[in-house]
Amino acid sequence: MNIGMIGLGKMGFNLVSNMLRHGHQVAAYDVNSEPRHKAAELGAIAADTIEELVSKLPSPKIVWMMVPAGGIVDDVIATLIPMLTQGDIVIDGGNSHYKQSVARGEKLEQHGIHYMDVGTSGGTEGAAQGGCFMIGGKEEVFKLLEPLFRDIAVEQGYLYAGKSGSGHFLKMVHNGIEYGMMQSIAEGFELLDKSDYEFDYESVARVWSNGSVIRSWLMDLTQNAFAKDPRLEGIRGVMQSSGEGKWTVETALDLQASAPVIAMSLFMRYRSLESDTFHGKVVAALRNEFGGHQVEKKG
Amino acid sequence: MNIGMIGLGKMGFNLVSNMLRHGHQVAAYDVNSEPRHKAAELGAIAADTIEELVSKLPSPKIVWMMVPAGGIVDDVIATLIPMLTQGDIVIDGGNSHYKQSVARGEKLEQHGIHYMDVGTSGGTEGAAQGGCFMIGGKEEVFKLLEPLFRDIAVEQGYLYAGKSGSGHFLKMVHNGIEYGMMQSIAEGFELLDKSDYEFDYESVARVWSNGSVIRSWLMDLTQNAFAKDPRLEGIRGVMQSSGEGKWTVETALDLQASAPVIAMSLFMRYRSLESDTFHGKVVAALRNEFGGHQVEKKG
Amino acid sequence: MNIGMIGLGKMGFNLVSNMLRHGHQVAAYDVNSEPRHKAAELGAIAADTIEELVSKLPSPKIVWMMVPAGGIVDDVIATLIPMLTQGDIVIDGGNSHYKQSVARGEKLEQHGIHYMDVGTSGGTEGAAQGGCFMIGGKEEVFKLLEPLFRDIAVEQGYLYAGKSGSGHFLKMVHNGIEYGMMQSIAEGFELLDKSDYEFDYESVARVWSNGSVIRSWLMDLTQNAFAKDPRLEGIRGVMQSSGEGKWTVETALDLQASAPVIAMSLFMRYRSLESDTFHGKVVAALRNEFGGHQVEKKG
Amino acid sequence: MNIGMIGLGKMGFNLVSNMLRHGHQVAAYDVNSEPRHKAAELGAIAADTIEELVSKLPSPKIVWMMVPAGGIVDDVIATLIPMLTQGDIVIDGGNSHYKQSVARGEKLEQHGIHYMDVGTSGGTEGAAQGGCFMIGGKEEVFKLLEPLFRDIAVEQGYLYAGKSGSGHFLKMVHNGIEYGMMQSIAEGFELLDKSDYEFDYESVARVWSNGSVIRSWLMDLTQNAFAKDPRLEGIRGVMQSSGEGKWTVETALDLQASAPVIAMSLFMRYRSLESDTFHGKVVAALRNEFGGHQVEKKG
Repeated sequence: MNIGMIGLGKMGFNLVSNMLRHGHQVAAYDVNSEPRHKAAELGAIAADTIEELVSKLPSPKIVWMMVPAGGIVDDVIATLIPMLTQGDIVIDGGNSHYKQSVARGEKLEQHGIHYMDVGTSGGTEGAAQGGCFMIGGKEEVFKLLEPLFRDIAVEQGYLYAGKSGSGHFLKMVHNGIEYGMMQSIAEGFELLDKSDYEFDYESVARVWSNGSVIRSWLMDLTQNAFAKDPRLEGIRGVMQSSGEGKWTVETALDLQASAPVIAMSLFMRYRSLESDTFHGKVVAALRNEFGGHQVEKKG
Repeated sequence: MNIGMIGLGKMGFNLVSNMLRHGHQVAAYDVNSEPRHKAAELGAIAADTIEELVSKLPSPKIVWMMVPAGGIVDDVIATLIPMLTQGDIVIDGGNSHYKQSVARGEKLEQHGIHYMDVGTSGGTEGAAQGGCFMIGGKEEVFKLLEPLFRDIAVEQGYLYAGKSGSGHFLKMVHNGIEYGMMQSIAEGFELLDKSDYEFDYESVARVWSNGSVIRSWLMDLTQNAFAKDPRLEGIRGVMQSSGEGKWTVETALDLQASAPVIAMSLFMRYRSLESDTFHGKVVAALRNEFGGHQVEKKG
Repeated sequence: MNIGMIGLGKMGFNLVSNMLRHGHQVAAYDVNSEPRHKAAELGAIAADTIEELVSKLPSPKIVWMMVPAGGIVDDVIATLIPMLTQGDIVIDGGNSHYKQSVARGEKLEQHGIHYMDVGTSGGTEGAAQGGCFMIGGKEEVFKLLEPLFRDIAVEQGYLYAGKSGSGHFLKMVHNGIEYGMMQSIAEGFELLDKSDYEFDYESVARVWSNGSVIRSWLMDLTQNAFAKDPRLEGIRGVMQSSGEGKWTVETALDLQASAPVIAMSLFMRYRSLESDTFHGKVVAALRNEFGGHQVEKKG
Repeated sequence: MNIGMIGLGKMGFNLVSNMLRHGHQVAAYDVNSEPRHKAAELGAIAADTIEELVSKLPSPKIVWMMVPAGGIVDDVIATLIPMLTQGDIVIDGGNSHYKQSVARGEKLEQHGIHYMDVGTSGGTEGAAQGGCFMIGGKEEVFKLLEPLFRDIAVEQGYLYAGKSGSGHFLKMVHNGIEYGMMQSIAEGFELLDKSDYEFDYESVARVWSNGSVIRSWLMDLTQNAFAKDPRLEGIRGVMQSSGEGKWTVETALDLQASAPVIAMSLFMRYRSLESDTFHGKVVAALRNEFGGHQVEKKG
């Protein structure tokens, strides 16, 4: 198939290489010239502008956006609309909020342009070697695109999830589960670290990766991380988050679903961003007030 | 009544002054001489040894222990047993685990000595001015002691809770609730602190202390704390804990009761003891593994 | 002062009686005629329409809305705008989201009408006998209204919180704290209930209300509740929520603040709405898959 | 090697078949005769008593206990001690608490008998086809047993974890992580179930099992479970627990480690055991007290 890829960051670039390896033709654009040149070296048609990219595509044109979630997606869509015609397809493969995807889909349908929201998982390696794709939008458009997904996904690694927004909804929930799983693993190793035993963490992660109930890709990655730095002494425990965990908790609130584990995983991330907390000061001050318990002075 | 007080720390000393003010006669002992002298100045009979203290008491002798929970309680009991006889009364007014109180009660009953487990609340101020007492043990012994409790408690501030251990059980659960309330208040002020509004925290605590649903002694104390240090800039948010919150959570586990709020309050205290965490490192390392997300290097 | 009250539910009606008792003149309107008549019996000027209510007020007109949060507030405002002129004052005393209050304030200011967001606490009894008011909006408008608040609040029970939205922000956080405090108390009594001791809950709540660290209005109310139904056998443990706890957690997410206790309090409420859960089924099914553990069949 | 297996439940029986398939000789005992006969059919030497089992083993005798954690383990050990001599080896492959394993190891060492605590994971299928083993005890004893573990484990699926207790400690923490992972997955599907989308859960679990970041054995099992019952309509969401999650949380408390996710996973299990809760009644009653909010009546 012919695909136009907009956005050649870690994920977009690796998807391009994946598509090319499977014999698809890819026109590739990024705001920066360096990844464009690299994509060209792999065999993609580098485009210097979105207009050029669109002009390289046969009809119906298929444009895959792989840009950071947020306003940039809207900007790219606004740029694309006048260049596309009825029957063309725009894919958002990024981590957009599913409600925004629904709204964008409605907007594009007014122009007769199809919009597919595609949650992409598997990390940068999966993007290159075979990933996991959760696909929302019209089923007939999915059918048209299915050969592409069959190629770039691992076996059984793509799913037509349903109507508009369902792909990004699934991806969001997937990330919520991911937060919970990561925190679960992390709490486990914290217990090992605080115990009197002297475990070799890489070996522990390895044995848990082989034959145990908790074997998982995340445990494999845990093993890799400890292989590089056996006690993780070189890094700080600051846990950033990129939004999808937050959206999952917000969705839980809207659906009146209790999601304590996903929420706690997120809160522990927020907590890790601070070296001291105001709530801690309040509790320490209160203990001092009623019990005369010492507080630690600043300084 | 005649009371022998063992342990003249903040709580024990204030109880002595409270008892004296109500016309009771108190023999007072502490391992340190200074509080003994101070108690004497208030009108107590200072005793240089436990033996001396016991000798000053008429029968049935009433000994109130106000010493740190743990082995010291057992040491004092072991010292007391040979000095006491049938019908004497030992009170543990400290924060002992209720199961230990049950065991100690059984041990003392073998000698015919009554044992009362008394949970004491209200802080150091309450000990001096009128506290709250939750009383476990034999009801007839409670009846005998009731005039004392009526004097040293605020009105309606004492309760015969039931059989041995029930007093310390109530106190333990009381402290669990206290953990949850404090964390609730603290989270609220954390939200104020992170908001764009510029609240005066002392004023907020004051208005919440007057007429609101959340008015409480802890809110009064919050106001006091902000009156001394409007932004708590002088202290660190390190939240120590003295054991009863932990016991409450352990009891919840044993009773298969879900106590998420009390447990989270405790875990946030533990979290505050550390400037960095191992679980945070694991999550940060994992994010780097699958997504190439930057980790913060140690510096 | 002259006040026009729109909304004569439990809170609005009680505020009217409070204002009247302090010598204020109140024009009162409600969509239902019954509370209008009752208000008239207390001495208010009953108005059959909002228009009539506004016509009864001298300039600058002061209209206090006490209607359910949400679209009704907007409807009332839309009705009021053409009837009011520059310098008039609209007060939202309900539980509106602070961001909506900011937006409404901006809209009304375009018409020269002042808007004050007033968080009201203290329950229905507080509304009648003296409540707690957190007031956001322009300071000069607050000054004008202060005599009213001084009358209807308990002593020190009102606060000018700051610019537009700050009153409802404080009320929202107040309710978040309230959720946490209530869940804390409730978990404590759950532990008593699951223990082997046979506590009299009303007595426990009473002793905790007198002299203890956790004494609070909520504990007084706990005592009242047990006085009516000693084991709460007549009611089900379904915990509804009215939105402010959810907003507090959403705000915590937006501010990247960790609020585990408030969040858990909310999730336990959501959990209580269901007799069975899908997440429970998934875990039960998984235990069966890997360990052959029995599941409970339906039916 | 020659192994004596005591306990032929799901796990023990499957381990016997695994050992036999790899050419080991197994004497097998169970209190019930049926599994003994079945084991004999597979080629094991069935023993009618523990004494007979021990008598069938060459020296040094290797006895593997696969019995329910708790007093039974102590009973079997008490039975074994007089039958064994210096240099013999007892393996506890069950889910014993690591502290008990340390104590049992010390006791047996007094008789010159070696004790190995072996955490076994991988479910019943893993026991039969290749499991995961975390091994604590003396390293030289491990070396002696290593050929056995190499055979019955999957590749890289066994680890010498360290001194006595470390095997069961690792298994305990493994199960804690398992609780967190299961709850994470379950919360995710709960969100799907409460959403407006109509997902096919088996398909979702399948796509998440292939190429995604959260691919894992537990996700494979989730897929299996939905294959059997697409909406899990036939089962109730009652989540039993067998003790190791509780031990993990207790250990976290002892180590002052914050383990919010594992703790919440456990509390949600406890919550699922009840159709109504006392804490829910307290909150509902309180809302009624201060706000006049309706409670749901029983009956």
